[in-house]
Amino acid sequence: MNATPAAPLRRIPDGRYPARLAACRESLAEHDFAAILVGVGPDLRYLTGFVGEPMERLTLLVVPREGPVSFVVPHLEAQKASTTPLVLAGGATVIPFEETEDAAQIVADLLALPETAAGRGAWEPLGLSNRLWAMHVLQLQGVLPGRRFEPASAVMRDLRQVKDADEAELLRLAAQAADRVLEAVAAGPLVGRTEADVSRDIRQRLIDEGHDLADFAIVGSGPNGASPHHDASDRTIHAGESVVLDIGGTRAGYASDTTRTIWVEGEAGIAPEPEFHRVYDVVKEAHEKAVATVAPGVPAEEVDAAARSVIVAAGYGELFTHRVGHGIGLEVHEDPYMVAGNETPLEAGMAFSVEPGVYVPGRWGVRLENIVMCAPSGREVLNRTSLDLRVVRG
Amino acid sequence: MNATPAAPLRRIPDGRYPARLAACRESLAEHDFAAILVGVGPDLRYLTGFVGEPMERLTLLVVPREGPVSFVVPHLEAQKASTTPLVLAGGATVIPFEETEDAAQIVADLLALPETAAGRGAWEPLGLSNRLWAMHVLQLQGVLPGRRFEPASAVMRDLRQVKDADEAELLRLAAQAADRVLEAVAAGPLVGRTEADVSRDIRQRLIDEGHDLADFAIVGSGPNGASPHHDASDRTIHAGESVVLDIGGTRAGYASDTTRTIWVEGEAGIAPEPEFHRVYDVVKEAHEKAVATVAPGVPAEEVDAAARSVIVAAGYGELFTHRVGHGIGLEVHEDPYMVAGNETPLEAGMAFSVEPGVYVPGRWGVRLENIVMCAPSGREVLNRTSLDLRVVRG
Repeated sequence: MNATPAAPLRRIPDGRYPARLAACRESLAEHDFAAILVGVGPDLRYLTGFVGEPMERLTLLVVPREGPVSFVVPHLEAQKASTTPLVLAGGATVIPFEETEDAAQIVADLLALPETAAGRGAWEPLGLSNRLWAMHVLQLQGVLPGRRFEPASAVMRDLRQVKDADEAELLRLAAQAADRVLEAVAAGPLVGRTEADVSRDIRQRLIDEGHDLADFAIVGSGPNGASPHHDASDRTIHAGESVVLDIGGTRAGYASDTTRTIWVEGEAGIAPEPEFHRVYDVVKEAHEKAVATVAPGVPAEEVDAAARSVIVAAGYGELFTHRVGHGIGLEVHEDPYMVAGNETPLEAGMAFSVEPGVYVPGRWGVRLENIVMCAPSGREVLNRTSLDLRVVRG
Repeated sequence: MNATPAAPLRRIPDGRYPARLAACRESLAEHDFAAILVGVGPDLRYLTGFVGEPMERLTLLVVPREGPVSFVVPHLEAQKASTTPLVLAGGATVIPFEETEDAAQIVADLLALPETAAGRGAWEPLGLSNRLWAMHVLQLQGVLPGRRFEPASAVMRDLRQVKDADEAELLRLAAQAADRVLEAVAAGPLVGRTEADVSRDIRQRLIDEGHDLADFAIVGSGPNGASPHHDASDRTIHAGESVVLDIGGTRAGYASDTTRTIWVEGEAGIAPEPEFHRVYDVVKEAHEKAVATVAPGVPAEEVDAAARSVIVAAGYGELFTHRVGHGIGLEVHEDPYMVAGNETPLEAGMAFSVEPGVYVPGRWGVRLENIVMCAPSGREVLNRTSLDLRVVRG
């Protein structure tokens, strides 16, 4: 008799949040931060489990190096904040404010320095979460004159960029869902449809595959594929051209992101021109070379360099106009970035995209992207669809 | 013979963007700002037509009081920026940067003060758009030491909060689309469905009605209706309870937002308890009183006070826990806010929600929301569904 297979993981276990907070406070001490101030966004979700969108009302987790952790929220959000795993576990106290109260002043009062610490406090920075809105930054700077503000990413980066086993599983499940969508859409039909229509189809399929959000579904046909951040237009896909499909979103908060470039030959069987074949092979080789570089201890920039050297050697270096990849987790773009100048040594559990591309203006582009996780020795590739050129009939 | 009816408006005419920029620069001079720095978001869309989401790479429109306007963008976004209406009209120059370049430094160089202006420049603030991320604020503050930063909303608020005829029409069309969705969903069936299922249904219908995004679809059944920002849970809707439906998104960039509270009686015909009826009538009267207050010259806070006085007089003041409304346009929440302390006099073209509510913890909540636009004399209510209590069978 087989055991019942476990249902696919849908959330981070509640007990993880107090542990994350404890690790955050250790990191605060290591980096000599007085406190970090975390607004609505991925850092807040990571520490508390709070899921939401930023708005004009300030919502802020105040994590001092020592002493009580406060979750300052508009009265309207108090019930929601009170039921986050961190608060339920007693890791933070919810401090609701009314519509006519000055939330920034409440935060300032929480951070007031005792007389004895005023000297020390002057040089210990307050960390601000990356996505906190400028309107709130300026309010906080206004009520905390003389205090230094620095990016909280110095503290949060180390915590978030190395994924634990559950986060790895959530990334794997998101990647596999995106793979199924890509396989289904790439099988066609595509000829005669607009990019926008295919894009809507992709978004709907991502939701049907259990994604919470279908953030992007780039469909770049023919010359539109030469713009790496082309979205999806009213252009109709024709036989005898390539299509770049770059799709993703989040499932249970963790992001998917995968790209394939396919060729649509149509009923007439219009084959790619020789240069397209050549460029496709160069990008595929660059992709494979970069992935093969991934291992603990390797500097992030070497992953970029590995892909770039293949493309430069083939004479297309100037048409590879972006870094080779970005970290991925609660954000689709996060640390570590695979880019020249980033000497961060890879660690087991770091997850990131590998996505070299070559963009020939006015003609077409080729990009191939997988999510890769650094493993204790070597790497794990989370996406499983083939990297070979797929030629679709219709 | 009738003329062909015009197709519903889908976009702001391209010629509007240079005019908006000109008005922005006049406002810069009035407010003694040296420049404003506008990141990806509603302010940028308003000024340039650029539609996108913020990311870790800086994208910034630099609008000095005089001289050239620069649009600093990652190389990847250059093509997209170049085709915005403002750039096509010659109103700004795109300055692309490479992956390894320091974008903040490029901005700092653009803002360097000539020797002769160094004195003046020290007191003239640089405005930051409300939603610019903290990581970018801190980078800009780091490369522009000694300069003062203030919210750009001082400049942008006056421009954006008074809608022109096309913006008014886009808000009207968004409101009417949301009305149709609300009518369809409120007609049932609802009993036996989860809130989450109804919420998904609402989002899909908003998209089918031509919305670009279906941002929120609050479904608060029974006691969940007592949490104003409840989202939608796995709770099943039962006969003999109320449901708060608060829905909206954006159509052609402009937001919809409307709320109705309905009663589901079920096959057994379970009528609301007397107190629900009483509270419903109080909220409806508060809503109507607040709307009737709207006229040019009336301070925004009086709209809040009008609703609040009705609810306080009925003895439910402590259960009306939020301001009565928020401005609406490219953002679902923007200036002007209808809240105690906001003395801004209403002007024709200002659009905002009127949404009093009473929340009885553990039992139910009642909220009724319409979008209202201040008219040259009086007001226009953009939502058209009835405010009467709707009792649904199933």
